[in-house]
Amino acid sequence: MIFGSDNMAPVHPDVMAAMTRANAGYTTSYGTDAIMAQVTAQIRDVFEAPEASVYLVATGTAANSLALSVYTQPWQAVFCHERAHLAVDECGAPEFFTNGAKLIGLAGEDGKIAPETLLAHVSGFHKGDVHQVELGSLSITNVTEAGSIYSLEETRALTSIARDHGMASHLDGARFANAMVALGCSAADMTWKSGIDVVSFGGTKNGLMGVEAVVLFDPQKAWEFEMRRKRAGHLFSKHRFLSAQMQAYLTDDLWIRLATQANAAAARLENELSGIDGFQTLYTRAANLMYCGWPRAGHARAKAAGAYYYDEPIAHPANGSADEFLTARLVCNWSTTDAEINRFAGLVRG
Amino acid sequence: MIFGSDNMAPVHPDVMAAMTRANAGYTTSYGTDAIMAQVTAQIRDVFEAPEASVYLVATGTAANSLALSVYTQPWQAVFCHERAHLAVDECGAPEFFTNGAKLIGLAGEDGKIAPETLLAHVSGFHKGDVHQVELGSLSITNVTEAGSIYSLEETRALTSIARDHGMASHLDGARFANAMVALGCSAADMTWKSGIDVVSFGGTKNGLMGVEAVVLFDPQKAWEFEMRRKRAGHLFSKHRFLSAQMQAYLTDDLWIRLATQANAAAARLENELSGIDGFQTLYTRAANLMYCGWPRAGHARAKAAGAYYYDEPIAHPANGSADEFLTARLVCNWSTTDAEINRFAGLVRG
Amino acid sequence: MIFGSDNMAPVHPDVMAAMTRANAGYTTSYGTDAIMAQVTAQIRDVFEAPEASVYLVATGTAANSLALSVYTQPWQAVFCHERAHLAVDECGAPEFFTNGAKLIGLAGEDGKIAPETLLAHVSGFHKGDVHQVELGSLSITNVTEAGSIYSLEETRALTSIARDHGMASHLDGARFANAMVALGCSAADMTWKSGIDVVSFGGTKNGLMGVEAVVLFDPQKAWEFEMRRKRAGHLFSKHRFLSAQMQAYLTDDLWIRLATQANAAAARLENELSGIDGFQTLYTRAANLMYCGWPRAGHARAKAAGAYYYDEPIAHPANGSADEFLTARLVCNWSTTDAEINRFAGLVRG
Amino acid sequence: MIFGSDNMAPVHPDVMAAMTRANAGYTTSYGTDAIMAQVTAQIRDVFEAPEASVYLVATGTAANSLALSVYTQPWQAVFCHERAHLAVDECGAPEFFTNGAKLIGLAGEDGKIAPETLLAHVSGFHKGDVHQVELGSLSITNVTEAGSIYSLEETRALTSIARDHGMASHLDGARFANAMVALGCSAADMTWKSGIDVVSFGGTKNGLMGVEAVVLFDPQKAWEFEMRRKRAGHLFSKHRFLSAQMQAYLTDDLWIRLATQANAAAARLENELSGIDGFQTLYTRAANLMYCGWPRAGHARAKAAGAYYYDEPIAHPANGSADEFLTARLVCNWSTTDAEINRFAGLVRG
Repeated sequence: MIFGSDNMAPVHPDVMAAMTRANAGYTTSYGTDAIMAQVTAQIRDVFEAPEASVYLVATGTAANSLALSVYTQPWQAVFCHERAHLAVDECGAPEFFTNGAKLIGLAGEDGKIAPETLLAHVSGFHKGDVHQVELGSLSITNVTEAGSIYSLEETRALTSIARDHGMASHLDGARFANAMVALGCSAADMTWKSGIDVVSFGGTKNGLMGVEAVVLFDPQKAWEFEMRRKRAGHLFSKHRFLSAQMQAYLTDDLWIRLATQANAAAARLENELSGIDGFQTLYTRAANLMYCGWPRAGHARAKAAGAYYYDEPIAHPANGSADEFLTARLVCNWSTTDAEINRFAGLVRG
Repeated sequence: MIFGSDNMAPVHPDVMAAMTRANAGYTTSYGTDAIMAQVTAQIRDVFEAPEASVYLVATGTAANSLALSVYTQPWQAVFCHERAHLAVDECGAPEFFTNGAKLIGLAGEDGKIAPETLLAHVSGFHKGDVHQVELGSLSITNVTEAGSIYSLEETRALTSIARDHGMASHLDGARFANAMVALGCSAADMTWKSGIDVVSFGGTKNGLMGVEAVVLFDPQKAWEFEMRRKRAGHLFSKHRFLSAQMQAYLTDDLWIRLATQANAAAARLENELSGIDGFQTLYTRAANLMYCGWPRAGHARAKAAGAYYYDEPIAHPANGSADEFLTARLVCNWSTTDAEINRFAGLVRG
Repeated sequence: MIFGSDNMAPVHPDVMAAMTRANAGYTTSYGTDAIMAQVTAQIRDVFEAPEASVYLVATGTAANSLALSVYTQPWQAVFCHERAHLAVDECGAPEFFTNGAKLIGLAGEDGKIAPETLLAHVSGFHKGDVHQVELGSLSITNVTEAGSIYSLEETRALTSIARDHGMASHLDGARFANAMVALGCSAADMTWKSGIDVVSFGGTKNGLMGVEAVVLFDPQKAWEFEMRRKRAGHLFSKHRFLSAQMQAYLTDDLWIRLATQANAAAARLENELSGIDGFQTLYTRAANLMYCGWPRAGHARAKAAGAYYYDEPIAHPANGSADEFLTARLVCNWSTTDAEINRFAGLVRG
Repeated sequence: MIFGSDNMAPVHPDVMAAMTRANAGYTTSYGTDAIMAQVTAQIRDVFEAPEASVYLVATGTAANSLALSVYTQPWQAVFCHERAHLAVDECGAPEFFTNGAKLIGLAGEDGKIAPETLLAHVSGFHKGDVHQVELGSLSITNVTEAGSIYSLEETRALTSIARDHGMASHLDGARFANAMVALGCSAADMTWKSGIDVVSFGGTKNGLMGVEAVVLFDPQKAWEFEMRRKRAGHLFSKHRFLSAQMQAYLTDDLWIRLATQANAAAARLENELSGIDGFQTLYTRAANLMYCGWPRAGHARAKAAGAYYYDEPIAHPANGSADEFLTARLVCNWSTTDAEINRFAGLVRG
């Protein structure tokens, strides 16, 4: 009954096997391995982007911060949701990698930036005003940190505003596959066809050991990215083991199958809990992540039995005071079982 | 016949097995895994340093740069050998992590800084002179980039000068085990007993997939290190897989056995080559890394047969012109076989 | 009729005279001039702080950013008002000087941070959580950017919260003298006696050519400040001309007299305007700076006659739509005359 | 008898007068003053560069570091002489402003980089090698820190190598006028006609209070420069007083007249000293700055009588041991008198 995070889950066996296979004999290092060449081809194929530049790093923080750093000057602003992972959970990494760019967190319902909110904020910046920071980039997260998803229309509305104001658009796809499965669209639809310039294509939360691809649709940024990656200590000497993970991930649609499982588990979990007296979701669950609340007694029973998840003192809906009602973030993953879900729901129900 | 780098070698099977074992079920993330607690205990034991702070990162560049960043202010200098890996092979990573500290590369025979050279340079810095950068830290590499080793006496002479001038001492131990085996000393001897404040304790070049431990002997620097690691994207969510590698490395002296093998292979290689007409070593080989040269025809034969190593146009000894004589960097690793060595020596000999 | 900014006003003749006097013959450079020794003594006397460290720089942005940089690590947060000059008018300078610290802008009535708002925000930070930035420092501005002032009680309430949470407190005193005159207190009262650790003691907006003193009440931060100042290019070779300005400023209470004049001018201006139909102040005017609004026709008359000030589309009070009513920022200075004020008020009145 | 530095000298009276004139009434701030428009026109005229972008800052460190920062990425190298002011006398400012670029100091006779030395070093950098920093920019100083000058041919040879390798060329012209007078050439000859992309055009050492112009011959870098200047706290609110200094400097060839005086004084000084027994110059004096040495007894007499200059333990020529012979840096300025020179030479002579 572990719903703490998808990064607490194990690595998929196919991925472990691929790493073991990659361990045969010598290979050239620092990203020149033969597997990486295949990964680049796979990702270009998946994204229908034959010119895209593809780089692997081992953490989401590195992926996001490096991606932003090639699109945001130190004296520019990054617009993101006020609860964006990169704004509140990365210890200032974007500021470190960009040498001090300013993150501007926007409020927004359901964990999403509304286009009119973005427009209102960027309109407050005056071109040629040396006293303000400049407009730099937009970063959205899909699946959002609230568990909701941006529709393709919503993404396009935002990236269109960004583009009109000279800003690049970054997609934090830590749960890219989960969003894509929920949207029922293609990887290209979710990204460059919707105006995204660079994407952090996450694997770690979806069955890999620790690999995120950064896909740059404009190859002109490639070399700068390479220099920044090396300089930040994120170029691996035994790179083949990153390549092997990503190769396995993209083979036989493993990434899509795992995300489908995780999303389905969360839907089942929501379904089981939703009938419980006092249960309430806080945002629109769309993928494998859900914010919700229920009476404190149900929390006590679940935790006593070993359930693990984060309490989230974010909001106290109308039907209960803070003393009686407690919210939680529940995350499912590819390995979540029906048995776990059933047992957990039973404990919450009491 | 791959002598390009020890990072082109495979991961030891015991390490792969440990990672597979670590993949059972859920574990808490970001370094709170139970294996890490054991690793910390193991490293404190190995280093005879019960108060040491221990952190794992995945690359040597991250280890070195983070280690230096907690001991060097942006307006200070890092003294290192002019050929130090962190000065010439990390794309300015130390400058990035320290926010612009100045690396001062010192010349030195056999890849080593001579104490008198260090003393002469630091004596040129005047306390309280706001126009100069300040003295910050010393970084030495052991095994050196030239393949030689600092004796304990040499290390102590250098760290003593550093300490007298208010500087901390960092040891880049990318090949820590190889140096320790060559010196026949303990890990404590090589580090804090010889005045080292922080060490990058490398594993990647000696059979791991990608793990370096940073060991801080002063626990007061621990929290800053943690913040810097996270902020640089070097804290892994599925951290257990770093822990598992390091645990296997330290179990049953695997790290010492692998380094012993690698050093022995290099000794055999040197022995096989040393009888060849025109062969010459450039520096004192002490561990698993050797700079040497021989007539061009021998290079041509070896390369035609598939040998892989780096030509190094560093020096042209007295017994041959540049046209006839070419130097090379040859690196052995734990998996290097006698057969490889014999075949290679045979090709060079012609 | 120039109410655009106090930095558009001339330098006081006494200050020009002092600079001319300082121009006699040779003087040692880089802050070692004899006048600076006197300035240090004067400021220590004014602030009743015999141990304080005193440094001069030429711009407010330098003063604020350098002050914050010695009290805020790159992975920490600076709490300030969401309209703080350093957050919105310095092009990200604090981020540059701190190497990427995160500015957190807090909303607050009348341009001031309410203690409960600060407390609520800092309480959301968990000690030992490596994913968040840490608490670093608090910065308040007095006179505020809205033209109001913090009472000593308000300052103490804020700095007390800061201290309780391990944060230093910075005072942006770009209009220090104006606030002090309005408060009727001493410089010590406004600063260290109210919990301020470091103050930007502004002179440029109050009759100097370009000098701000940074006063550090903890001498332990002095050397770091000196290094950061030099490294940022803010240590002047011909420093005597900064010293001379500040010396004149502090002689015979010139600074207090000029601020008294500027505040009185603003009070007169408010008084003249307040009887006009549709006139409204937005915040509590306390010193020499006022936000207010009146019907558009009055703006048109004033501007046609050469009045200069900034329109501020900040708020549209209840008594007029945006089409009819326009707000303005009006700033008086030591040289503002009754004639200017009367003429301006007459034009607004129509 | 002050030969310590040209920045210990007073401001020329014409400059003081211009500042007083500029103090009449109100002026718009932050570089929008009318005088600045005239200064831009003057500088474009002087440099025969009608498209050049011109900015004023108050210190040479700011000028040099900002100039380099628009031409050097954080992962690139700046090549300069090993004794370059920006490498050894600015406390790491270039590293701060460039966010960590690497300064590579080249040895060179007479304080100058030899073209073949530059070529040898840049040839060691391999395009596309992610492990090294990249080639970024070249910075030369004219008058050099040794007091010698680069001929136009020497400048062209260096900038030509830079250009061939994709690097921009910066000229640190802290003593620009002194070099130009010595060379007998035009400002255009010394800069863009010799391949210089950006120049720090110094005024502070030649009679101004504190102004250096940065002239960018490529207007495409202008906006970035403006943002960086503001962000570094180097945009002055009461900018008119910088403008007024530079305007006076360029009016009626004041800058050329003052440099001519300073150079002539140094020539006289050299002439007076050169007949003294044991006197020896270390480098070729070409302008207003001279490194030389003489017996210790002469130093003792001069200092006892109040002479001020820096001892420089740089080199001990063949004709005396360190115990008997001491070197000095002697700098003349626009206000140096014959009487000072004669008295000083008399004391040295004994």
